[in-house]
Amino acid sequence: MKFLFLNGVNLNMTGTREKGVYGVQSLEDINAEITAYFNYDTCEFYQSNSEGEICTQIQKAEEEEFDGIILNAGAFTHYSYAIRDAIASVDIPVIEVHMSNVHAREEFRHKSVISEVCKGVICGFGKYSYILAGEALTLLIANKDQTV
Amino acid sequence: MKFLFLNGVNLNMTGTREKGVYGVQSLEDINAEITAYFNYDTCEFYQSNSEGEICTQIQKAEEEEFDGIILNAGAFTHYSYAIRDAIASVDIPVIEVHMSNVHAREEFRHKSVISEVCKGVICGFGKYSYILAGEALTLLIANKDQTV
Amino acid sequence: MKFLFLNGVNLNMTGTREKGVYGVQSLEDINAEITAYFNYDTCEFYQSNSEGEICTQIQKAEEEEFDGIILNAGAFTHYSYAIRDAIASVDIPVIEVHMSNVHAREEFRHKSVISEVCKGVICGFGKYSYILAGEALTLLIANKDQTV
Amino acid sequence: MKFLFLNGVNLNMTGTREKGVYGVQSLEDINAEITAYFNYDTCEFYQSNSEGEICTQIQKAEEEEFDGIILNAGAFTHYSYAIRDAIASVDIPVIEVHMSNVHAREEFRHKSVISEVCKGVICGFGKYSYILAGEALTLLIANKDQTV
Amino acid sequence: MKFLFLNGVNLNMTGTREKGVYGVQSLEDINAEITAYFNYDTCEFYQSNSEGEICTQIQKAEEEEFDGIILNAGAFTHYSYAIRDAIASVDIPVIEVHMSNVHAREEFRHKSVISEVCKGVICGFGKYSYILAGEALTLLIANKDQTV
Amino acid sequence: MKFLFLNGVNLNMTGTREKGVYGVQSLEDINAEITAYFNYDTCEFYQSNSEGEICTQIQKAEEEEFDGIILNAGAFTHYSYAIRDAIASVDIPVIEVHMSNVHAREEFRHKSVISEVCKGVICGFGKYSYILAGEALTLLIANKDQTV
Amino acid sequence: MKFLFLNGVNLNMTGTREKGVYGVQSLEDINAEITAYFNYDTCEFYQSNSEGEICTQIQKAEEEEFDGIILNAGAFTHYSYAIRDAIASVDIPVIEVHMSNVHAREEFRHKSVISEVCKGVICGFGKYSYILAGEALTLLIANKDQTV
Amino acid sequence: MKFLFLNGVNLNMTGTREKGVYGVQSLEDINAEITAYFNYDTCEFYQSNSEGEICTQIQKAEEEEFDGIILNAGAFTHYSYAIRDAIASVDIPVIEVHMSNVHAREEFRHKSVISEVCKGVICGFGKYSYILAGEALTLLIANKDQTV
Amino acid sequence: MKFLFLNGVNLNMTGTREKGVYGVQSLEDINAEITAYFNYDTCEFYQSNSEGEICTQIQKAEEEEFDGIILNAGAFTHYSYAIRDAIASVDIPVIEVHMSNVHAREEFRHKSVISEVCKGVICGFGKYSYILAGEALTLLIANKDQTV
Amino acid sequence: MKFLFLNGVNLNMTGTREKGVYGVQSLEDINAEITAYFNYDTCEFYQSNSEGEICTQIQKAEEEEFDGIILNAGAFTHYSYAIRDAIASVDIPVIEVHMSNVHAREEFRHKSVISEVCKGVICGFGKYSYILAGEALTLLIANKDQTV
Amino acid sequence: MKFLFLNGVNLNMTGTREKGVYGVQSLEDINAEITAYFNYDTCEFYQSNSEGEICTQIQKAEEEEFDGIILNAGAFTHYSYAIRDAIASVDIPVIEVHMSNVHAREEFRHKSVISEVCKGVICGFGKYSYILAGEALTLLIANKDQTV
Amino acid sequence: MKFLFLNGVNLNMTGTREKGVYGVQSLEDINAEITAYFNYDTCEFYQSNSEGEICTQIQKAEEEEFDGIILNAGAFTHYSYAIRDAIASVDIPVIEVHMSNVHAREEFRHKSVISEVCKGVICGFGKYSYILAGEALTLLIANKDQTV
Repeated sequence: MKFLFLNGVNLNMTGTREKGVYGVQSLEDINAEITAYFNYDTCEFYQSNSEGEICTQIQKAEEEEFDGIILNAGAFTHYSYAIRDAIASVDIPVIEVHMSNVHAREEFRHKSVISEVCKGVICGFGKYSYILAGEALTLLIANKDQTV
Repeated sequence: MKFLFLNGVNLNMTGTREKGVYGVQSLEDINAEITAYFNYDTCEFYQSNSEGEICTQIQKAEEEEFDGIILNAGAFTHYSYAIRDAIASVDIPVIEVHMSNVHAREEFRHKSVISEVCKGVICGFGKYSYILAGEALTLLIANKDQTV
Repeated sequence: MKFLFLNGVNLNMTGTREKGVYGVQSLEDINAEITAYFNYDTCEFYQSNSEGEICTQIQKAEEEEFDGIILNAGAFTHYSYAIRDAIASVDIPVIEVHMSNVHAREEFRHKSVISEVCKGVICGFGKYSYILAGEALTLLIANKDQTV
Repeated sequence: MKFLFLNGVNLNMTGTREKGVYGVQSLEDINAEITAYFNYDTCEFYQSNSEGEICTQIQKAEEEEFDGIILNAGAFTHYSYAIRDAIASVDIPVIEVHMSNVHAREEFRHKSVISEVCKGVICGFGKYSYILAGEALTLLIANKDQTV
Repeated sequence: MKFLFLNGVNLNMTGTREKGVYGVQSLEDINAEITAYFNYDTCEFYQSNSEGEICTQIQKAEEEEFDGIILNAGAFTHYSYAIRDAIASVDIPVIEVHMSNVHAREEFRHKSVISEVCKGVICGFGKYSYILAGEALTLLIANKDQTV
Repeated sequence: MKFLFLNGVNLNMTGTREKGVYGVQSLEDINAEITAYFNYDTCEFYQSNSEGEICTQIQKAEEEEFDGIILNAGAFTHYSYAIRDAIASVDIPVIEVHMSNVHAREEFRHKSVISEVCKGVICGFGKYSYILAGEALTLLIANKDQTV
Repeated sequence: MKFLFLNGVNLNMTGTREKGVYGVQSLEDINAEITAYFNYDTCEFYQSNSEGEICTQIQKAEEEEFDGIILNAGAFTHYSYAIRDAIASVDIPVIEVHMSNVHAREEFRHKSVISEVCKGVICGFGKYSYILAGEALTLLIANKDQTV
Repeated sequence: MKFLFLNGVNLNMTGTREKGVYGVQSLEDINAEITAYFNYDTCEFYQSNSEGEICTQIQKAEEEEFDGIILNAGAFTHYSYAIRDAIASVDIPVIEVHMSNVHAREEFRHKSVISEVCKGVICGFGKYSYILAGEALTLLIANKDQTV
Repeated sequence: MKFLFLNGVNLNMTGTREKGVYGVQSLEDINAEITAYFNYDTCEFYQSNSEGEICTQIQKAEEEEFDGIILNAGAFTHYSYAIRDAIASVDIPVIEVHMSNVHAREEFRHKSVISEVCKGVICGFGKYSYILAGEALTLLIANKDQTV
Repeated sequence: MKFLFLNGVNLNMTGTREKGVYGVQSLEDINAEITAYFNYDTCEFYQSNSEGEICTQIQKAEEEEFDGIILNAGAFTHYSYAIRDAIASVDIPVIEVHMSNVHAREEFRHKSVISEVCKGVICGFGKYSYILAGEALTLLIANKDQTV
Repeated sequence: MKFLFLNGVNLNMTGTREKGVYGVQSLEDINAEITAYFNYDTCEFYQSNSEGEICTQIQKAEEEEFDGIILNAGAFTHYSYAIRDAIASVDIPVIEVHMSNVHAREEFRHKSVISEVCKGVICGFGKYSYILAGEALTLLIANKDQTV
Repeated sequence: MKFLFLNGVNLNMTGTREKGVYGVQSLEDINAEITAYFNYDTCEFYQSNSEGEICTQIQKAEEEEFDGIILNAGAFTHYSYAIRDAIASVDIPVIEVHMSNVHAREEFRHKSVISEVCKGVICGFGKYSYILAGEALTLLIANKDQTV
């Protein structure tokens, strides 16, 4: 299986700033840990501060033969209908993840405009949110014949 | 580790009704599958249609030495501030799960009054939501010395 | 035909208090009058102040071979998504009734969270609301081959 | 007893269009069936696409010695404060009916501006909504000495 | 000067119903009293339950050489953007009147969609609201050279 | 009859500023014109920028034997529940006036918190709003035996 | 092809008033220009200030063998659920047009209650809005075999 | 006098958890202190996590000859219209109490659906809220002949 | 102990007007009764219709060595952020009181902008609200070493 | 004449995905068809997933001597105040187009933040929306001397 | 140049209370520092807890030949339409200042009802907010011939 | 000191368009004037229409040893939570500036999603807004030892 871990705006600052919220590891370190965890799978990582780039990556993921996308859209989560439409335009499953529990933070973070078109949502487990999403993808794909 | 899988109102109907949403397996079957999956851990299961009973179970979980609670509160999720306060009153982690992606259903299911006081949220993966939550608990407890 | 007349919270106070709103007859007297009216049908009556009990009764009604439920959920009408989901989980018709015209009372009584999943709504006719709902069930079942 | 069955805007299209919602019978056929059902009572029928005409019919109903009005105001239900005031200006009971369960349709149909000034509301039973409303009027008038 | 006193829906019921709100005089009696009061002016009166007719009367008032319109639109006040646009389409002043103090009644009566395009508003003085509006028109026209 | 013309905050600037809205006459000039108009009545005038003073004047008006108050509360109109309660605490009629048509100005001026407890409202007629209010008081007092 | 150009309330004032918004041509002149433009098609024109009449025209258009309706409902656009339901009750395409750009005018004109049930919307092009709508109908009908 | 101190959901956790908010004493200790304070009165205590049980206790209090109820409904305060209706159905005074100042906590705690039907509200004084409510009851009953 | 009983706008009308709401005793009489009740304490009383004066009194209370303030801000309660900030600027406890149950009155009285910065709230007990607040202050000060 | 057809985010997916909504033709095919239709005009096409790029294209269009812009901003329509300001900063007309009828889709698509600063809006006609917009531009420019 | 530094309610407490928000200097000390900073200009200072006094000072500033007003209205900022109208009634520029960043504090402080009628706003720089506002005035007046 | 003047979307159009709002100088001219004003400091300027680029610039500013950022985010101000999070992720002060008084323009410009995480806000002073922000930074940095 081939997974795309897609990180949106400001996620490149992980480990450098707001360590109380996002931990002390850099995104690169987290990605390395994810790769190690899923050692039988292909994990690719992409981060961009550009909403348009995130859309383009999602659009291309299917023809690049990814089996699914694990998406942490950062602040774009809360207003980017563009990313929402990009997700809706592809057939592979997209899982929304957040490292922090967004529901325990500012009011504006309680609303996600992309959840409705994602397969599922995982938030609040720090770097493990990515790993759990990868496991979720694995389970979903392995059991895709089941009705739910 | 000892986990409490706590299911709220109408979850006892799983597998019998609304199979398009919740699948064809009964809650008992799902529980058996969960037990098999976590074969080194102790999994206990409790379901109630009574909001007060759910509160009481949460209150007792700590003294009964559970390491964490996996809670699918069903429709109580959307208005039970009583369950919210029960969660806030205990020190062990509570993970909110839903089998369906609640954000892709009716408007009233988009709001959870308990997310803010849970450790994290997992939804949209059918019965695997419970299993992922169990894995999340395992990871959290095994790495509890890490800051995030 | 076998009907379940299900009354929610505080309906046991009917005839004792707020007589201007609910009349002077007790719920027992009203039930007796309903039984007399539908003398060829089986009418069963259940009242509970517990939201969970109401859910459980709705869940069991189908296997207990009721042809339909006449439900006056009392104040639960306005916020119990649990009862809503219980109604949605059964296949027999549920008719929402209120003795008073809830639209002519306090603002909070204007919104019902259960109407959407009921077959129909009857309110404002005092004890006759129950009788009309029973007649509605009779008509619906007798004509169930018609498309609407 | 003498009943006025008053139908508002677009009800003249019943049976011709949107048969999934309103059934396949024309309004004339439904009216004939109502007349047959209440064979001891006088039933008169009036339909208009004009809000003003509906108001005028309501205003005249009392002096024309109707005992009550069964009103399906169609889309006017949701915004015609004019019809509301017309209802409030007469002393005979007015019963609001809808063939469909308006609460299970579009959001704008969930709000009725006339319910507050009607005696009661009956919706969701197709053509039987009219018949049940006629029975309701009969019961109310026969028992008008009772306090509720 | 030539004034048009224009009354909207249900005002024909004045004096017959809801006497506590609108007094015991019929609209005809009130009109006669108005005519007597403004004995040097030409007062014409028009009442309709039809929103379209009210619009047409407003549209025609200028070519019929009225100096101004005193408009009690009844319940249309609260939602008829059609009447609003009709007022905005004529150059003669329109004064909004209400016999009752609409701000001391139901919430929906607090909002007028026509006030913004009227010259002024007078409410709460029973039949005298019409007379005061007539006096207002007289003063405005007599002093139209003044800047405000 | 003895009338109190009570002007609230910033009305002392009338004629000096915002002449497009309030005209070119000073408040003193307008008061003089009012006095001349009502030459058989006693007119007293009071203006204050202090909300508390306006309340105190309203409280004292009855024992000072005023027959009524004509109140232009200025910007206090839109938020001073203190003035509202002061009006509610006296038995003599209070008429709310505005020189401009407040409904054709900024959104915040569309809401008055005092209208509900006033006898009536007159707005949009410049200085004539005061005169019409005086006439209204005269008519009301002269006909106080009539029911409405 | 046979088109019905249907104009609602106050459109008969076009060219007479508010020329800055609606231009200087009368509705008759615009209609003549439309007829000349579509010289191979049958164009019929109907205007009414009555909401009910507009509904009736829409209801009749199909049996009168119109291929489509170009509807400028005027102010009814913003609140007439009656017209909405009339549109929903016919099978021929209805195109919503406005001469002005309603989104650049008052807030209340930003919401249309009929757009959802129309085929499409064209606004902001003055009299050309009608012509563009006619062209749209022509294109849609000529290409009706295409899926979108 | 005989008082019922009724505590709702999660109040049984008092003194064990969230000591910063609720203090370090258990509910039993607080109850003992209340009993000692009102040593000439009969104080009874009841706590339940079940909304239905709270309703039932309120319904029974009058026939059990309590002179009044001191009710801390916990989180039920904010959404239980069932408890509201139970309070409205009894004639003895009910006083709403909270140990914490609910207005200084989360937004959802600022709204109480039961205040409107209680005699009065006391919040913010820790365990003394109960004692003050008991004193309030004593004063009210001792002076019940006074008009307010 | 030395208490400041501070009354805001219109409270000087107590006993004179709206006796159904506020009782028949004047504020002076109530103050005398309070003084008698707390005969070992120093009670001072201040009333003003001026929002600014209320702020100034609160600011000065600490240096004048009051142990606490019992504040009935009247209508200022609902919008005076100025008074709120004044309360927040002093260290002595302020208790919000109302004689009536504000939650059972008009909608605008349900919201207090000062509750959040007060120690606690007592409402609905007529003149006894002041006395209970005094007792509350006494209890709080006597037990200030306790954590809550 | 020289037209710029500007397509925003995800429009590059046209014809590939969601064919039920957007048809089966690719954007390139549609563009070719547009070019063929307007064979006497210069049509240029630009698509970008980047909001900033769309802004830049709009800014440059005037100096590149385009006579107008036909803009389908995709999901940016609903929140990009940046694009709105870009449109407002140029003098050439911009026409907003959508292939689907956005008013018949999700709630969030009902609001456009750019309509107010566009010349007009055309939606719901599939690829013909672009062609109609081109015709609209042609008509507007050819008749630019007319007042509306 | 002659500047008026006008401080509203509770600003007299600066330096005494809430030092974390407002610093440790008294308002007198800050004023002295401002005077020293602008040593070529005339700076006058006025503080009042009375909303009416603030209005009066603003009204008088022009005739007292101030070149501009630097206004920190304190909590009045958030609801005093009276001060807003006072500002609108004078021709000299008024600059709104706040020492704290009001947008980073409570929700109610995010809304200013006076910003719209001020020349500009400066907040968040502690005592330097006043100095920057003084510099702003100096720049504006020195360059008043420039168009913006 | 080293300052970064960061301008967002459409600011590159300054001086070319909407001169009534933004003046006649180009952004380059304004930047030159700023450089001249702060002749002892290092001023760097960056403008981008890309939200992502703005985020990246903010992220890099600290390692590039800027002492602070003066940010005019243009229309991004009103919805870019991405920029908000970028600001929150750096330790150097960011000052929000606007040339126009955004509170006196369209409703959507009244809300800034970035103010909460900026040090302060300056708006309404045209090009001087930048200069005042530079002065503010200078003052803040020079006095950073002071508590506020």
